[in-house]
Amino acid sequence: MNDVSIIGLGQTEVKEMWGTSIRHLAWYAIEAALDDAQVSKVDALFVGNMAAGQLSSQMHLGALVADFAGMRGIEAVTVEAADASGGAALRQGILAVKSGLVETALVVGVEKMTDQVGSPVTAVLASTLDADYEAIHGLTVAGMGALLMRRYMHEYGVSVDDFANFSVNAHANGAANPLAMYRNRLKAERFASAPPVATPVTLFDAAPSGDGAAAVIITRHERAMDMVPQPVRIAGSALATDTLALHDRKNLLHLRAAEISAQKAMAAAGVSHDDIDLFELHDSFTVVAALSLEAAGFAAPGEGWQLARDNEIGRNGRIPISTFGGLKARGNPGGATGLYQVVEVARQLRGQAGDNQIPDAKIGMAQNLGGSGATAVTHVLRTDS
Amino acid sequence: MNDVSIIGLGQTEVKEMWGTSIRHLAWYAIEAALDDAQVSKVDALFVGNMAAGQLSSQMHLGALVADFAGMRGIEAVTVEAADASGGAALRQGILAVKSGLVETALVVGVEKMTDQVGSPVTAVLASTLDADYEAIHGLTVAGMGALLMRRYMHEYGVSVDDFANFSVNAHANGAANPLAMYRNRLKAERFASAPPVATPVTLFDAAPSGDGAAAVIITRHERAMDMVPQPVRIAGSALATDTLALHDRKNLLHLRAAEISAQKAMAAAGVSHDDIDLFELHDSFTVVAALSLEAAGFAAPGEGWQLARDNEIGRNGRIPISTFGGLKARGNPGGATGLYQVVEVARQLRGQAGDNQIPDAKIGMAQNLGGSGATAVTHVLRTDS
Repeated sequence: MNDVSIIGLGQTEVKEMWGTSIRHLAWYAIEAALDDAQVSKVDALFVGNMAAGQLSSQMHLGALVADFAGMRGIEAVTVEAADASGGAALRQGILAVKSGLVETALVVGVEKMTDQVGSPVTAVLASTLDADYEAIHGLTVAGMGALLMRRYMHEYGVSVDDFANFSVNAHANGAANPLAMYRNRLKAERFASAPPVATPVTLFDAAPSGDGAAAVIITRHERAMDMVPQPVRIAGSALATDTLALHDRKNLLHLRAAEISAQKAMAAAGVSHDDIDLFELHDSFTVVAALSLEAAGFAAPGEGWQLARDNEIGRNGRIPISTFGGLKARGNPGGATGLYQVVEVARQLRGQAGDNQIPDAKIGMAQNLGGSGATAVTHVLRTDS
Repeated sequence: MNDVSIIGLGQTEVKEMWGTSIRHLAWYAIEAALDDAQVSKVDALFVGNMAAGQLSSQMHLGALVADFAGMRGIEAVTVEAADASGGAALRQGILAVKSGLVETALVVGVEKMTDQVGSPVTAVLASTLDADYEAIHGLTVAGMGALLMRRYMHEYGVSVDDFANFSVNAHANGAANPLAMYRNRLKAERFASAPPVATPVTLFDAAPSGDGAAAVIITRHERAMDMVPQPVRIAGSALATDTLALHDRKNLLHLRAAEISAQKAMAAAGVSHDDIDLFELHDSFTVVAALSLEAAGFAAPGEGWQLARDNEIGRNGRIPISTFGGLKARGNPGGATGLYQVVEVARQLRGQAGDNQIPDAKIGMAQNLGGSGATAVTHVLRTDS
């Protein structure tokens, strides 16, 4: 089976962009990716988006974005898996290229969350949870984060402050990323005094919703080698699911889909934990960062927070995470987030991460979660150079 | 490249199902398809759905349906392309099987449209059009049908009554389909006196929204031959797009995406028009049926309506359409419609169409449109027996 490689990267700033339509937002990332790959045409477009129908009263982004990007006529669809939509769209692009029916695929994640014309964003985000059994009772995404964090603190005897360095690290890295939503550094003392969002989750535990778009262009690896100086190989790709509702899980603190998809992607890539130079994980909440490190096997259950405490997640640590700020500081533009993660890993592997560079990075992993982890998509990227 | 075949079919009635949740609706079709294929597990699930976020405040159907169907953990995503979501989901399933990474894929289309808890259905359907340039000015899907129908009448000098037999034929076929939303026969005289929806579109030009789900199970053809007595081969598959907005098209009456996707799917299957024994087209409006026949090459521009007038679309006509009632009489459950079409073609090719059987059907085509035709997905199916 053909290996698939990334030949182009594009991303916009993450911020509030009230004056930018969703089609423009997608186009800015696509334009950058086409420029980067030095290609002018692709065979298929996969759009990762979760909520344009609810937030912008606009479905049918496949046709809309294809037309607006000057690609009228091509195959184009939207892929949705809550905030894992971006990773899921890349997975579909990979399947398409591997099928042999699509030579070059463009995958763009786009989300416009800050000036919704439809439903309020908190209600829309709650529709990524179980509408009939969770959201109907008032559970929000922040409330879900609070349930997980409280359970984690209870089970493992840790305090709110023990999560601080996830946020401090994300902000330190975001400070050097000109595209990040928040570029302010954060001191651990400030973390402790942050206003509550849903106790024990505070403003500095929770990632902010933002507007943004990120894109990659992929093709078969042999072709990629002739096209660009530094193709980034997608060595492993896997998508797995778990129960949608938290109450259906045997263990709230075990992100089963994250574990399955990480194991499958790493097995496909033939890499072990020691081989992985950085891990862009889904730090929608500090506790989800801890749980993701555990599910992916970088820490034993209950010990993910220790990697933050010991600063093993920093640029020179054992497993650097959120190297451009993560969801917490770069921002979390819903269905675009999974593609920001992949673009960031690819920039690290190309050695184009500027002040955020992880020295000598060869292999990186990106993991995008949806809802409370009911969907997990993991990609392992590597460079031959 | 591996050919892909259908090994299981399932569908529910199309009607108003206020007491049935979207997860139950999907499950009923999946259960029937698993029974039909005599399999108990699949490797991946593709859900075709356009509007559960807006109508039921429930995104993330991939994980939800996988879990509810007893397939917790598997790869599962939602594919959206307006009312072409069902056909688009099947296309993704085919790419997945052809990639070699997925052995058996389950594709289910599901839509629950009649007891929306969120936005009103007319506004939701309008979000399949261009939100910023069409819907914002008040264009609805029925209004879009009216624009097309009036233009057709003007260009080609035909009258409202010239469209009658599309509806009469659909209702005659729906009458024999126990799963159809409307099983009443329709006389041409009644057509002429129907109440207007958006002049010149009347109640009998426009297909009704309904609740429903349909599913197919697919795998590689060689494997399918060992598994079921009558695998139905997917000989051609293509998805194409057009401008989202009507005003961006050079010719309003040319469904360019429908033409491209039909040509590609037929070329892949190596079939000509004379080989095709039936055509399940997207008769969301009578005029769209006429335009679809023209775009797919069964009639010259401006002459599609004549196939209805001469009853060449009937069970014994030159190109039978809407053989189980079509969108008009079977009903149009949004993102499920494309899979109803494929299930119906497959039943015809298996010789399991009962009173709706097209004699000796060997090759059939299904074409699913989104919005005003901005997405078109065409599948050519054939049986070896």
